[in-house]
Amino acid sequence: MKLNADIGESYGKWTMGNDSDIMPLVDQANIACGYHAGDALTMQNTISLAAKHAVEVGAHVSYPDLQGFGRRSMQLSSDELIAMIHAQIATLEGMAKCQSAKIGFVKPHGAMYNDMMQQPALFESIVMALASYHCRYDLVIQALPDVSIFCSTAAKHNIPLRFEGFADRGYTASGFLVSRDKPKAVLSETQSLFQASAMINGDAFLSECGNALALHIDTICVHSDTPDSLILCRKIRSLISKQVSTKSVHTS
Amino acid sequence: MKLNADIGESYGKWTMGNDSDIMPLVDQANIACGYHAGDALTMQNTISLAAKHAVEVGAHVSYPDLQGFGRRSMQLSSDELIAMIHAQIATLEGMAKCQSAKIGFVKPHGAMYNDMMQQPALFESIVMALASYHCRYDLVIQALPDVSIFCSTAAKHNIPLRFEGFADRGYTASGFLVSRDKPKAVLSETQSLFQASAMINGDAFLSECGNALALHIDTICVHSDTPDSLILCRKIRSLISKQVSTKSVHTS
Amino acid sequence: MKLNADIGESYGKWTMGNDSDIMPLVDQANIACGYHAGDALTMQNTISLAAKHAVEVGAHVSYPDLQGFGRRSMQLSSDELIAMIHAQIATLEGMAKCQSAKIGFVKPHGAMYNDMMQQPALFESIVMALASYHCRYDLVIQALPDVSIFCSTAAKHNIPLRFEGFADRGYTASGFLVSRDKPKAVLSETQSLFQASAMINGDAFLSECGNALALHIDTICVHSDTPDSLILCRKIRSLISKQVSTKSVHTS
Amino acid sequence: MKLNADIGESYGKWTMGNDSDIMPLVDQANIACGYHAGDALTMQNTISLAAKHAVEVGAHVSYPDLQGFGRRSMQLSSDELIAMIHAQIATLEGMAKCQSAKIGFVKPHGAMYNDMMQQPALFESIVMALASYHCRYDLVIQALPDVSIFCSTAAKHNIPLRFEGFADRGYTASGFLVSRDKPKAVLSETQSLFQASAMINGDAFLSECGNALALHIDTICVHSDTPDSLILCRKIRSLISKQVSTKSVHTS
Repeated sequence: MKLNADIGESYGKWTMGNDSDIMPLVDQANIACGYHAGDALTMQNTISLAAKHAVEVGAHVSYPDLQGFGRRSMQLSSDELIAMIHAQIATLEGMAKCQSAKIGFVKPHGAMYNDMMQQPALFESIVMALASYHCRYDLVIQALPDVSIFCSTAAKHNIPLRFEGFADRGYTASGFLVSRDKPKAVLSETQSLFQASAMINGDAFLSECGNALALHIDTICVHSDTPDSLILCRKIRSLISKQVSTKSVHTS
Repeated sequence: MKLNADIGESYGKWTMGNDSDIMPLVDQANIACGYHAGDALTMQNTISLAAKHAVEVGAHVSYPDLQGFGRRSMQLSSDELIAMIHAQIATLEGMAKCQSAKIGFVKPHGAMYNDMMQQPALFESIVMALASYHCRYDLVIQALPDVSIFCSTAAKHNIPLRFEGFADRGYTASGFLVSRDKPKAVLSETQSLFQASAMINGDAFLSECGNALALHIDTICVHSDTPDSLILCRKIRSLISKQVSTKSVHTS
Repeated sequence: MKLNADIGESYGKWTMGNDSDIMPLVDQANIACGYHAGDALTMQNTISLAAKHAVEVGAHVSYPDLQGFGRRSMQLSSDELIAMIHAQIATLEGMAKCQSAKIGFVKPHGAMYNDMMQQPALFESIVMALASYHCRYDLVIQALPDVSIFCSTAAKHNIPLRFEGFADRGYTASGFLVSRDKPKAVLSETQSLFQASAMINGDAFLSECGNALALHIDTICVHSDTPDSLILCRKIRSLISKQVSTKSVHTS
Repeated sequence: MKLNADIGESYGKWTMGNDSDIMPLVDQANIACGYHAGDALTMQNTISLAAKHAVEVGAHVSYPDLQGFGRRSMQLSSDELIAMIHAQIATLEGMAKCQSAKIGFVKPHGAMYNDMMQQPALFESIVMALASYHCRYDLVIQALPDVSIFCSTAAKHNIPLRFEGFADRGYTASGFLVSRDKPKAVLSETQSLFQASAMINGDAFLSECGNALALHIDTICVHSDTPDSLILCRKIRSLISKQVSTKSVHTS
């Protein structure tokens, strides 16, 4: 089990998140590529911080919308979307190489992420963007009870998928996240750790309705915006470390 | 002698220049990288057009100023300038690789170009941007009677230079271009062809004051914005072809 | 019957449309306010041109999307949409006052226009934006066979409506425009003049399916992007003049 | 003596400053108008907050540079600068009217402010922008020992000036601020209160070199970015209140 976080989301003189505190705790940094956040200097500094902590770097690609922070759905033609995804990956890739770092994956951000999970045609455009890119990178999508159509589309274009879970968010019966304007959207620390623990052990956990969800999860997304989110992240990191050491005892 | 042109300067629904007519006539395309022009789709299409005509692709890097088309001087810190140049090269480089194309050079655009020729510290920052980039690319600068300080700065950082001349512009006695608000700024077609011919043959030509200028020129910059500029470009292309065939006769 | 055109859609060094030719032919200029086109200097020059020809000025408000020219649907919260509409009207209004000109109306642009005609909630947000603005301006919407829900929403907030028709576009049986990717989307000049004539006389005209459409139309939208569109505009202008003189004969 | 602060400098999801804490403490709010910060919703909310606390609203106009926060000098033509200043004032003015608020003054921001104090031609362009605006607003500039050339330019165009001082910044012998990269740039709280007190009483105070500076100051600029700056602001506010009550005793 890996931990990932959205990092490098500052812009010019505006800062966001707590990059220096979260970076040492995660395995994968989803770095903004200038479309929803991340000017050139911020990208450079974020890559440098990731390299220092040996964190895998991924392109956090977005709709072109700084003012809306990539959280507004936009209707783009497939051609334009693909060109924009290429441009974002390319920018991060080249800047990473300047620091002897490599990109390992691509994760859509915000509204593009949500839209991709709902619109098969958009998902295929994103997969095609990765398939027509000159390097092969993994694509991060949300873990769901049934990801078969995502897998078949990705397999058709030969793009590996990684599945992402959320420790601190309530899940609906169908395996999506409870909307932030609903009561059980955000879990307490105790609940979050319980859910993280299940995810780490590959166990089922309960949706808001009480049914069991069994999801294949490769990486858990954590946050750095509040002091509480950092504390939670440290505890999940610690849970993973324990599981690793337990496993190594069991297998030895 | 090569011909180069600024290409790919459209943005979204706005078009500029006559890319499809000029591309077959030049050897080198200076492609806008999104900072003064060139959205992702425009970049992709321009690279594709260059590849079709086997034209060498270069990153036409700029200050971040779409509204001013990169023609307004901006004071950036050296760190920020370097990160911005890296980002622009990286974007074009990655998108070019998606079409099996390669970047060959970097040419600053507009105000950055002018500022670089006047401010040694800015020139060194640009050279350092290229020196700290993960690939080695040539830097295009303006040919002047004395380029020794440019050469020594570039040599210090191990960056090859290419020198550019202008066939259709009047030169001052010191080898700079006559400002566009002055009478002899733009030459007639006859004058331009005469000047181009001298440049191609490595001969001296006259400044607006009548003194002889002997410049080492590797590439002549041509334009596509007007029908006249395209006609001129075709005639210069033809002059180069003749010189090449004459040379091959002489050397055979 | 009035004629209106989208004017002032240049941006920085990029130009669009043929503003100086179309302005003398229309009664109403829909001026871009910086969100899909129209930098400050372009706005100023366009207001000046309108004032010179005594053309009524309107705010052509858009989603915030220069790169997509306001043609991409974006999901904005009602609060944000209202603030953005206020900002665009305010900018044009203040700049118009500097030239002793006044705004008369507001017309949504591109994707916002289309979305408004399809989504009652969005339409009401736009009406509320005008109702909460400090001056009362008319709102331009598309003429349809049944505009009762638009009228009742506008009446609720006390906003006058103007209804717009399109002379050169085919209409579907339900009174919407035939999509541009369909065969009968754009009419020939002869057809356009026939349709314009019907609109001017208040007569019904035929949809692409051959059923009669009776629309209440206050203003016809014309274009300036091609030489043909300018010729058509002159002829429609002439049709209106004839109708006016015929009317004055009849009523005298 | 008045207190002013730069307020409304957030942008989209990025926040800056502590607007709700500083607003009740100041007399004048310099509100960002979208060119260096301040999207439409932020502008609306900031005007609302100012109105709630009966704070006078001013347009904090800037070069067009969100990414650089208006802190990078840009060379604009006088025409373009004037149009941009008109656009910014107009946007804030119209949005203020929607909340029954009025603008009282204009204050250039960041690099435009510094450039205006150094370049008489730029200062005159700014004054001309105000003179050609449809309403008359005061212009805020920096208090200096000799402001005669500023006064004569402003008087020529009939623009009232307000002079601004800085309580927490060291002054050079010539009355400019000590550059932030120099040792005595920022004063301690004790020094700041001492300096503020002198400014409030109209007394001379010492430059970093120890010579006495006698400046005519109408308004003191305060900040909200750090907890310390808020504390200082409260103490200066209190100093002004005391002076007012002392005065009223003396004059009664």
